[in-house]
Amino acid sequence: MRAYMNRLAARPHNVGSPYDKENAEWILGKLKEWGLDAHIEEFDVLFPTPKERVVELLEPSRFRAKLAEPPVPEDPTSSQTSEQLPTYNAYSADGDVTGRLVYVNHGVPDDYEQLDRLGISVKGAIVIARYGGSWRGIKPKVAAEHGALGCIIYSDPRDDGYAEGKTFPNGEWRPPMGVQRGSVADMPVYPGDPLTPGVGATKDAKRLTVAEAQTITKIPVLPISYADAKPLLAALDGPVAPEAWRGGLDLTYHLGAGPAKVHLVVKSNWDIKTLYDVLATIPGSQSPDEWVIRGNHHDAWVNGADDPISGTVAELEEARAFAELRKQGWQPKRTLIYAFWDGEEPGLLGSTEWVETHAADLTRHAVAYINSDSNGRGYLGAGGSHTLERLVNEVAHEINDPEKNISVWKRSQLARIGREQGEAAKEARTRKDLRIEALGSGSDFTPFLQHLGIASLDLGFFGEGGGGVYHSIYDDIYWYDHFSDKTHVYGRALSQTAGTTMMRLADADVLPFEFGDFADTVKRYAGEVKALWQTKHDEIEERNLQLEEGVFSATADPEKTFVPPAREALPPHLNFAPLDDAVDHLSRASEAYEKALSTHESTVPAGELNPLLIESERSLLDPHGLPKRPWFQHMIYAPGLYTGYGVKTLPGVREAIEQKEWSEAGEQIPRTAAAIEREAALLDQMTKVIER
Amino acid sequence: MRAYMNRLAARPHNVGSPYDKENAEWILGKLKEWGLDAHIEEFDVLFPTPKERVVELLEPSRFRAKLAEPPVPEDPTSSQTSEQLPTYNAYSADGDVTGRLVYVNHGVPDDYEQLDRLGISVKGAIVIARYGGSWRGIKPKVAAEHGALGCIIYSDPRDDGYAEGKTFPNGEWRPPMGVQRGSVADMPVYPGDPLTPGVGATKDAKRLTVAEAQTITKIPVLPISYADAKPLLAALDGPVAPEAWRGGLDLTYHLGAGPAKVHLVVKSNWDIKTLYDVLATIPGSQSPDEWVIRGNHHDAWVNGADDPISGTVAELEEARAFAELRKQGWQPKRTLIYAFWDGEEPGLLGSTEWVETHAADLTRHAVAYINSDSNGRGYLGAGGSHTLERLVNEVAHEINDPEKNISVWKRSQLARIGREQGEAAKEARTRKDLRIEALGSGSDFTPFLQHLGIASLDLGFFGEGGGGVYHSIYDDIYWYDHFSDKTHVYGRALSQTAGTTMMRLADADVLPFEFGDFADTVKRYAGEVKALWQTKHDEIEERNLQLEEGVFSATADPEKTFVPPAREALPPHLNFAPLDDAVDHLSRASEAYEKALSTHESTVPAGELNPLLIESERSLLDPHGLPKRPWFQHMIYAPGLYTGYGVKTLPGVREAIEQKEWSEAGEQIPRTAAAIEREAALLDQMTKVIER
Repeated sequence: MRAYMNRLAARPHNVGSPYDKENAEWILGKLKEWGLDAHIEEFDVLFPTPKERVVELLEPSRFRAKLAEPPVPEDPTSSQTSEQLPTYNAYSADGDVTGRLVYVNHGVPDDYEQLDRLGISVKGAIVIARYGGSWRGIKPKVAAEHGALGCIIYSDPRDDGYAEGKTFPNGEWRPPMGVQRGSVADMPVYPGDPLTPGVGATKDAKRLTVAEAQTITKIPVLPISYADAKPLLAALDGPVAPEAWRGGLDLTYHLGAGPAKVHLVVKSNWDIKTLYDVLATIPGSQSPDEWVIRGNHHDAWVNGADDPISGTVAELEEARAFAELRKQGWQPKRTLIYAFWDGEEPGLLGSTEWVETHAADLTRHAVAYINSDSNGRGYLGAGGSHTLERLVNEVAHEINDPEKNISVWKRSQLARIGREQGEAAKEARTRKDLRIEALGSGSDFTPFLQHLGIASLDLGFFGEGGGGVYHSIYDDIYWYDHFSDKTHVYGRALSQTAGTTMMRLADADVLPFEFGDFADTVKRYAGEVKALWQTKHDEIEERNLQLEEGVFSATADPEKTFVPPAREALPPHLNFAPLDDAVDHLSRASEAYEKALSTHESTVPAGELNPLLIESERSLLDPHGLPKRPWFQHMIYAPGLYTGYGVKTLPGVREAIEQKEWSEAGEQIPRTAAAIEREAALLDQMTKVIER
Repeated sequence: MRAYMNRLAARPHNVGSPYDKENAEWILGKLKEWGLDAHIEEFDVLFPTPKERVVELLEPSRFRAKLAEPPVPEDPTSSQTSEQLPTYNAYSADGDVTGRLVYVNHGVPDDYEQLDRLGISVKGAIVIARYGGSWRGIKPKVAAEHGALGCIIYSDPRDDGYAEGKTFPNGEWRPPMGVQRGSVADMPVYPGDPLTPGVGATKDAKRLTVAEAQTITKIPVLPISYADAKPLLAALDGPVAPEAWRGGLDLTYHLGAGPAKVHLVVKSNWDIKTLYDVLATIPGSQSPDEWVIRGNHHDAWVNGADDPISGTVAELEEARAFAELRKQGWQPKRTLIYAFWDGEEPGLLGSTEWVETHAADLTRHAVAYINSDSNGRGYLGAGGSHTLERLVNEVAHEINDPEKNISVWKRSQLARIGREQGEAAKEARTRKDLRIEALGSGSDFTPFLQHLGIASLDLGFFGEGGGGVYHSIYDDIYWYDHFSDKTHVYGRALSQTAGTTMMRLADADVLPFEFGDFADTVKRYAGEVKALWQTKHDEIEERNLQLEEGVFSATADPEKTFVPPAREALPPHLNFAPLDDAVDHLSRASEAYEKALSTHESTVPAGELNPLLIESERSLLDPHGLPKRPWFQHMIYAPGLYTGYGVKTLPGVREAIEQKEWSEAGEQIPRTAAAIEREAALLDQMTKVIER
């Protein structure tokens, strides 16, 4: 794996770069060398790269941001400056704007709510937000919704710089001039090529114009370092930022607006670039039409030793191991597909375009998709479809933790016991399966899971060691060799975990989906959205009461500006009965199915059952999709419209309540319930198949 | 009040300075000028002042701390350098020590617990602690208990410097070179002159030698600014400090030990200085032997416009008002004593020595003691004996808030409604009286309340505006005029609040003690100490289980040092029955008393009842005092042995449980219960007196 990394991360290999293509060809060569049937599939996508970038302070003094990451002498690849993409946010709108600066913390909706209370508007202003608190693409989107002209995003040293530890190259954390690149496309609306929503970006695809593309930001955005941010923040006056908003710079965090006046320019080359997805197939011996798919991307923002090569090499090693097994005579029952995606960084391009191109086949044949991305030291992180929660737990029992010589399952369990309190700690001690996370977005599982309803898992190790080189030129071999999984023992553990999962999915007689954990999880989600409604109700009721009592006027410091919140109408009660009924049905149906399966173990008609099991995740799709984003069709899992990578479960209902769209919430409850009912009905059908 | 402040804060007036004496004489002159019977009472106390102070970094580079606060051009009194006490901690032991530096956060016992887990010892080291988290005197005490050779305390900019807002003179917060002076005597053992515990420091008092004085620190201590602290902290290596320990400097907070090596020298002149307490008496017309006492100190660390002159001038104005009332023919029924204490800053010297000197008379005659200290803008802060909770609530209903034109009670109530959640918010809306704080220490109420059992209140306004000039040369008229209660309207509100309280205590037929609130409060405290035992029990049980399960070994990052905690024996069950019985008795007795009082309103024999009411706070004393500190005799309220100013209620029981001294806890429960039983029995007696 070290050898693979030394090759793949040797030079910058972003989308459109020569080394990106060379890497794809090298991976293809390796796969073929190992005897696998492999090919490259190309797509042509919009990929803007900067031609003009300016951040300058005009008032009260002048300062021009460097917008550049200096090479570090110890670190050989950091000096490959001619091949490095400049620091920028892909899919920022072009713009040349000037305005007073306002500090907006993370720039999420709650932050603007607080700014409103403090009497600060961003209308006509340029906002500066710190990274964190949401996926970066949310920041310019919400800023634009509030009337801002431009958006600067910076990495505060409190979050991943010197406050966390020594900075690179002395430590793993972000140095003063380090910048986090990244996409700001509105991926929660749809990921992939902004010009080809819903269809593959093949040579002859029908394309939108750039102006028509919905996912490009409305205002210009640039990411900057904390060295560049400091003079801007130091030039702000106005109210002092609330305590939780303050970062690690040695200055008073003021909110503005002004007197700092800033000039921001972003202009891009809006070029079409070619993606190189590499795919290898190991045909199934018994059920070749049932596909088990594995993927990790290979493109990076710069050298990307951590993101994504640490995961890419683990996947590559799995492919080699399966190739070896084949040479020894083993054949999977089902077909294995190993994918190495290009263009994940700008917006899950390679995976999304491939999934959109092959949607019909995938809907028919795909059993499951197993994803990975960056990999480090520590604990198995597993997220995904809860129908696979049992499977991934069973696999985790079999994998040895290289640091502790206990199973990675045991290590995770003990960590939860140590971390959790009360009921959650009790559950960590007693529940058969450790709960897995629901998936939002941020890696290539999204099109599989949330567009096509293919049961998915995302696997990786992390939790020990830190890092502040994410999406910078310093995420490279030197960094990985000094500060992460230096001996690649967790790379091996990832290969073992994902490889074992692939093998079980490929070879099980009855596909290893389990519905008890799923039903239990959905029931929790239903409880959460009901509690959320109650919380919103109680908050509004309490605030209205406080307005009536005069709490806000009595407690406002007359020496500071304070704007009391407006009175709000109480939310109407919602009819959660269809959701409760569906959840009950799902619980009963899953119990009956699991009971039937164990009672009739020896006579289960696997051949008849497996197609229904494959269909089970599809049942959770609604072909109309979610409100305002029909591309996202899964009714249980979605990235949040206002969190980005952060997941929203039962997203139709949950986001309507969060956004106080009461009539939409009323519509989404029966839609969501219907998806769950479909799943329950399918389970009933499967139980009958077994019992027949 | 502005005129008084302009006089009293015009020059530095610490204990032993010429201006301290001049101020006392000026106050005396004013009181006499107004026609009051006033005098100065002198005491002779140990008051060390520095003759040598060194903090220097020896390795890995050299740096010598400035240990000086520069004058600020805009601020005229900041340049009175020849009269300013150097920056130091009074009652630090003399010492000349060199050692590796260790950062210990606040330097409280929990911090050392965490250092133990990280494998870091302070044995033979010099610790650097930041201000906050406890009273400053706790830091060198706990450091010495852990084997440290010396202690440096610094003001982190996160806590009261630039992280909070603009720094002086542009704002109210601590500038880079600002230093917090202050006493580090072990006041939770006994306050007052370290050489005369328990007796007045009169000319002829029997004195301990300095070496015998228990309250002088065991190791040398110096306070420094954040400008001086930065090179020291920047020179540390070793583990990165836990997140909550990190301050606002632009560096990585490492723990050490080393490579920073520090040389610390503290040498003092151990002189005896004279205190000048100023006392004025307004004799009572009906019950001259019942004394209602009011106090605020007049000494400061430097100019002290805020601390204490903002409170001193409010008290002075009260005295003038009462003198005016007398001229108009009013006489209080009881005797009023207005005290202006000297030597509060070094250790409640003036009040403690006066109380110790007059202990027998005070025990016989004192009805109550009303204290104040610094005063600012915002909300009425009231702490004290819960037998006075009703009284102070009633007074607060009558005082107008100068900013909002509602009563200060209403403003406080609305603030609590806005701040609290759940039960506490509900209580803020519905309970007749707003709860008052229990008193720990930190001002002159301590000898009255906790040594002699005189019901006490501490009053002041704060909560709006901030401040980082505490105990520095910048706490002066310029600062107060720009950043605090500029127009002295809250000074007037304090005069009105304390003055009204004094008048009601002086003139009520039946003394306005109330026991329903007190019983309710004691019952809560009893619930808290029982819950505390359970929490300690559950924590130990859980930790032992985790040790058995292997949680600590499984989750320790092998690249970091981690020392698992030791297994501990489970605490024995404690017999809380005597406490529960006493609390029940108190509740019944207080109900009966209040009922009798209202039923027999017109026939209450006030003359017979009042002496018993005066005795009521005395009943709560145990003449043996608290474990390890017999001077503190109040069984309900005490400053914490390991928090300093922070209060411990039911301190005998609570601290024994906190420190896991189970057999001591077993002894303290019946002692505490006995005090509560005495109170209940006294109430029964009073009820009989009324009903007879």
